[in-house]
Parts: sequence; structure tokens; C-alpha cells
Amino acid sequence: MAVNLPPLGKLASIRGVRIGTANAGIKQTQRDDLVVMSLAPGSRVSGVFTQSSFKAAPVRVCEEHLSRASPRAILVNSGNANAATGSAGLEDALQCCRWVADVLDVPVETVLPFSTGVIGQRLPLPKLQGGIPKAASAIGDAWEPAARAIMTTDTGPKALSRSIRVGATDVTITGIAKGAGMIRPDMATMLAYIGTDAAVSQQCLDRLVKFASDCSFNRITVDGDTSTNDSFILVATGAAGNVEVDDEDQPGYASLRDGIVGVARELAQRIIRDAEGATKFVTVLVEGGRTSAECLQVAYTVGQSPLIKTAMFASDPNWGRFCMAIGRAGIEALDPDRIALYLDDVCVARGGMIASDYTEEAGAHVMSQAEFTVRIDLGRGTASDTIWTCDFSYEYVRINAEYRT
Amino acid sequence: MAVNLPPLGKLASIRGVRIGTANAGIKQTQRDDLVVMSLAPGSRVSGVFTQSSFKAAPVRVCEEHLSRASPRAILVNSGNANAATGSAGLEDALQCCRWVADVLDVPVETVLPFSTGVIGQRLPLPKLQGGIPKAASAIGDAWEPAARAIMTTDTGPKALSRSIRVGATDVTITGIAKGAGMIRPDMATMLAYIGTDAAVSQQCLDRLVKFASDCSFNRITVDGDTSTNDSFILVATGAAGNVEVDDEDQPGYASLRDGIVGVARELAQRIIRDAEGATKFVTVLVEGGRTSAECLQVAYTVGQSPLIKTAMFASDPNWGRFCMAIGRAGIEALDPDRIALYLDDVCVARGGMIASDYTEEAGAHVMSQAEFTVRIDLGRGTASDTIWTCDFSYEYVRINAEYRT
Repeated sequence: MAVNLPPLGKLASIRGVRIGTANAGIKQTQRDDLVVMSLAPGSRVSGVFTQSSFKAAPVRVCEEHLSRASPRAILVNSGNANAATGSAGLEDALQCCRWVADVLDVPVETVLPFSTGVIGQRLPLPKLQGGIPKAASAIGDAWEPAARAIMTTDTGPKALSRSIRVGATDVTITGIAKGAGMIRPDMATMLAYIGTDAAVSQQCLDRLVKFASDCSFNRITVDGDTSTNDSFILVATGAAGNVEVDDEDQPGYASLRDGIVGVARELAQRIIRDAEGATKFVTVLVEGGRTSAECLQVAYTVGQSPLIKTAMFASDPNWGRFCMAIGRAGIEALDPDRIALYLDDVCVARGGMIASDYTEEAGAHVMSQAEFTVRIDLGRGTASDTIWTCDFSYEYVRINAEYRT
Repeated sequence: MAVNLPPLGKLASIRGVRIGTANAGIKQTQRDDLVVMSLAPGSRVSGVFTQSSFKAAPVRVCEEHLSRASPRAILVNSGNANAATGSAGLEDALQCCRWVADVLDVPVETVLPFSTGVIGQRLPLPKLQGGIPKAASAIGDAWEPAARAIMTTDTGPKALSRSIRVGATDVTITGIAKGAGMIRPDMATMLAYIGTDAAVSQQCLDRLVKFASDCSFNRITVDGDTSTNDSFILVATGAAGNVEVDDEDQPGYASLRDGIVGVARELAQRIIRDAEGATKFVTVLVEGGRTSAECLQVAYTVGQSPLIKTAMFASDPNWGRFCMAIGRAGIEALDPDRIALYLDDVCVARGGMIASDYTEEAGAHVMSQAEFTVRIDLGRGTASDTIWTCDFSYEYVRINAEYRT
């Protein structure tokens, strides 16, 4: 099940990034489950990570390595999250970095490790020890195999490329991501990697990764359940040879920002299109708020309410459940008599009650579409914000009653 | 579907409370959907209500009437919540109070109105106008018919009686409640009424209703979705003739409090036993916290996580999902390496990772039971708190994809 998840188009290679994948046997399937990326010297890397208290071991090693050295390699395995594995898990993540360092001949602290899959079990180290040289020896332009190798409950890979102009130079951006459940990213999503050959200063890159995640991965929710391993990594190799982007006022900054945001947002939306059991792709836009924060609070309460999500599944324009969710969102001094609700262009309610010209048929028609927008006007300000979410189906229950996270 | 929901035992009448029910045709079924309660002069009444911004019209009228007069009557209808109905809804609720006032010959501001059912539609006034005299003329000792008449998606009625001693006097307590979905009460639950013939001062009664709801209805969750109509009403008629309980230090206070809490907690737990689609009744006990508030925060994050609820449905002792939920609960400076998890007496994890003596079989055995306790030790203090919740099944999706709230 997936809602208009587009097939992969042609992925552009990024000069300075080389990728290899392997089947290390971690997942006991025929699919590749290991990715090694090699980054050219001088590449800049910035990342954002889960805010969970149960931050996984590889996330902790990653943050530590990022603070100490310029990264030269990225290792990703699926099938095992190496989370809730204590100090042994930290040592396992480090050991994997050592194997990558050996085979690529780079210092261990320049290797960033990532894991996704079952939580609470030790990594099967012998399988990683065998798989890492295999992936490294196959190294080349494997963006598409990498997009497949990082999948868990995803039904399809998510990846795309964009070409933009930065100043006078052509720059390429390619990104991959995975995720379908345990999705309510807090600073970043499950796993996403975006590479560009643009030359960008470290400070600008740090700003870009934060900005891009706040308009993409930090605006989606499947089930409100934030993962222990969320990571979003932005790599800039500088191989395009543009004048280095090192200031927000520089003309190239805006186009680079828009290019990266465009790729990140498309990847984030594809995660929702492929969300566990999803039959609808829903945009929740909340406007007329006093602050963007309160708009988001309402948007998430609506987007995560099991009663609204089951109504979306049933194409039921259930105004009562929207009232319920808006009412419990915890907005100080909210006046229900000023609230309006639209499904696409159909006005369901205004002034806190059903609109006189509204018909159930019109509302149900909008919600029967595979994609629609829920627009809520709080009627008390000029702020707005948007998230993307999905419905809640029998299939969600089946997947999560059968799959061991 | 319901988890060990006990059949109704014999319900004791409460001197000073008389109840009649009728089928007003609001719900288009053969079931009664209207309750009129008459309270003897001198009865004291205290209530707690939903904190939703979308507070329903009857709740607003109720709060207003409670502040102005000593209640003499209660009116409840199911089938229509009279919520999100604007000023017209307020006028409708008032009109219903007028009809009750006429038929019982009491002032209009002594009538408390309650509604539960579909949100966002006007009350069918003619049906209420016809039903109210019918219910009033049948007035008697109809606690059990009332418990049935207030049901919506409930599969069975919830009611019980207790006899206690207050000082030297025998006192009776009888309570009824309804609710199965849109349950995550915030100050009170959907609808609950507890009557006692004890003599209690207004101040003590106000304290008791708050205290009792905080250890019962405010500790349950089905779906995290707080209703627009939650109300919990405590009536004390004084007919038992005990020395009036008007101070917490008075010997009778503790026994009255324990009696009321006992009835309220049992009613709250029965709401969970009858929760929409529930196959498991689960106690979530969080201990070792710094404050009761942070224990509750973890308990609710666990009890409302769709991933944990589907794992409960599947009897899957999924330690990884518990890590995820504890990790995202937003507890400042939580050390994952001190956390322990128990399923009943089986230690699943300690020190933040799977216990060495734990077996999946032992964990799965506990979770395959219809009732079990999830105990989480945060390892950083002496506070604890408990909530009751249920699993998340195909049936929950079916019920909420088909039912119009």
C-alpha cells in the first residue's frame, strides 16, 4: 500500500560521493542491507539527530565523530537499530567504524555509523565484518541500490535528484530516505542522506540542514512515535567548483537552500506516501494562529488523533472529531466560535459550527480522494504552518501487530 | 468485544435520588436514550468537566447553573452531543432545562443538562420535548435503565453500588458511567454520575469530586482523544443522616473518600474493559520518577503509542517500542541506562537493556493474558503513578471507520 509514491527517476551522481552496497545477511533476506559511502577529502557534512532520551548507540557515536573530525565515510545498516544496547552497543558501533576505516584507509573518527531496524538487540558483528569489505569493494555510483538497502517496512525506495544554479555554476543534489512507521521525527527523520557537489561553508551547511529538516522531515507524522535512530545528513563535496556559499546574503544561498529544501520535502512527503498502511496522503494546514508553534500544535493533534485518522480512512468528513482534536490541543484562550474548517475548497464549518451551505456529499467527495488538504483557520492571528500525514487503516494494525520493530 | 467487563450486580437505590428513563427516539433504536434524575431538596452536587476549548453547550450551561443554584434535577440524553453548535446549541440546552423544570416544578437554573453522541448537529428538540415528560412520569429507582440509556458505542452498561460506614452511620454509594472511545479524560470522563446518601458539606464534596476523578477517570486512556462533553457529577443527598462530613480530619472523611474513589475507579476501569475494540486490559505503572507528573507523562506516552498498543494486541513483548516511547516522553535528563521494564513479575530489561535472564517466551506469556501490568522503573526518584489502558485492534479501526461520532 502506498499513496502515489512515484517510481524512482534517474538519480544523478554527486562528484565526491561514492557508494557501495552489500547483502550482509543481517535481515535474512536476499536484499542488500549494508551501505558504505566514501566522501572526498574536503567534503563538509552536517547532521541533525533524534531528540529521544533513548538515542541509539550509532547516533551517539555519530555526534561524537562529527564534533571531532571532517567525515570521510558513512556506514548504514538496516535490520538492526543498535538501540537500547548499552555500552556494548557503543563499542559495537565503534568496531564497525574501525572496519570501515581499515578498508577505506581513513581515520576511525571520520566514519559516521547509522543503523535502522529492530531495537534492543546487539548488532550481529561477524555479518558486518564480512559485509563491509564487500560493500567497499563494490563502491561506485550506487545511490539507487543504497536507497533500497536502507529500507525496513518501506514498500518502495525514496530518492530523487535536482539540478540547480548556484551563482554561475551548475550544482547537483541527490537524496535518499527511508521510513514508514515510528515516524514523528523530532529534529530529523528516520534516515535521510542528501548529497550535493556545491561548495558551502560549514556554518552555512549547519544552518541549511536545520532549516531544511524544519520544513520537511520535522513536518511529517505517521503515528506520533519518534524513533530512537532518526538522522538526517547533508553532505557537500564542493566538487562543483562554485564560489563557496558562506553567507546567507550571498546570491547563491537562496537557490542552494531552495534546492535542498525541495529535495528534503519531497523525500519527507514520500515517507508519508509510503506510510504503514496508508491509503490517503493528507496535508494539514493550520492558519490564523497567533504563532507558528500553536498552529503546529493543532496540526499535530489533528494529524495524530486516532479518531481523525480512522475517519480519514473511511472518507468520513467528521466535523465532530475535528472539534474534539482542536479542542484538546491545549491552545490557551482559543475561541471555538471563530474556527473554520475546509476540506480542499469545501467550507465545512465557520464560526465554530457547520456552514449553512455545506453538504456531507461535498465533504465526503474531497475525503474520498487519495490526496487532500485539511485547512483549519483559528481566527486569531496571521501565523500558519503545515504538516503532512496519512490515515489509519486495518493494514497499519496488521503491519505493526506482525512486525518486530 | 470487552475485557472481563463484569455483569451488573444489584444496584442500591440512593434515598433522595429518583430516576426515570425514556426512549425519545434521538438514536433511532429501541433503546432508551433519555434520563431524568430528580434530587431531593438540600442535596449537594459537585462536578468536574472537560477542559476542551470546544466545551459542549450542555457543559457550559451546567457550569453556569452549578454556580448559581443548588441542583434539583439532572437531564441526560445520548445520541447527540450538542457540541460545536454555537449559540443555538446553548439555547437548545436551556430549552431542555426549561421543560425539565416545568415537569418537576423546580427553577430552571437547578436543572443540569448533559448530552453525549454525535458532535456538530443540533439537538432534535421536538423529540426531547416529547421524551422529557415520559421519563419524568416513569420516575423511580431506575439506576440500571439509566446506565443503559447513556450508552453510545459501549457494549455494556457500567454501574455498581457500595455500602460503607461514615462515623456511626451506614451510607450507600451508587454510580453509573459510559464511554468506550474518545477517552482520555482531562479532569473527568465522558459521563459519570455517582450518588450517595451521605451528608457532606459543599466544600468537602468539591474536594472529593476532584480527588476521586484524579485517581479514576483522569487515569485512563483509550486513544488519547479528549471528548468535548466529559462530565463527572457527584451527588450527596444527606438522607443517610450521618453527622455531616465537613472536614478532612473528621474520621468519616477517609471512609467516604475511599468509598467514592472505589466506585469511581471501578467505573473508570470498566470503561477501559469496554474500550472500542479492546482485547487487553493493561495497567501501566511508572515508578522511580522524580515527580508524579513525569511518571504520568511516561505512562501516557506508553499507553497512547500506536506502536505499543498494536504490540499489545499481538502479545508481542516489544522492548524496542517501549524504549521508543520512554525516549520520546520528553523527560529532562533521563538516563536510559537506569531504566527497567517489567511485564507483571517478568523483568524484561534492566540498566537500559534486555535482562540477561529474560526470555521472549516469558514476556509473550504475560502479554497473552487478558490483563497484565507494564511496570517501568525510571531509576531516578521515589515518585510513581498508574494509568489504565487497552490495546489497539482491527476492531478499533472498524468501529471508528463506521461510527459517526
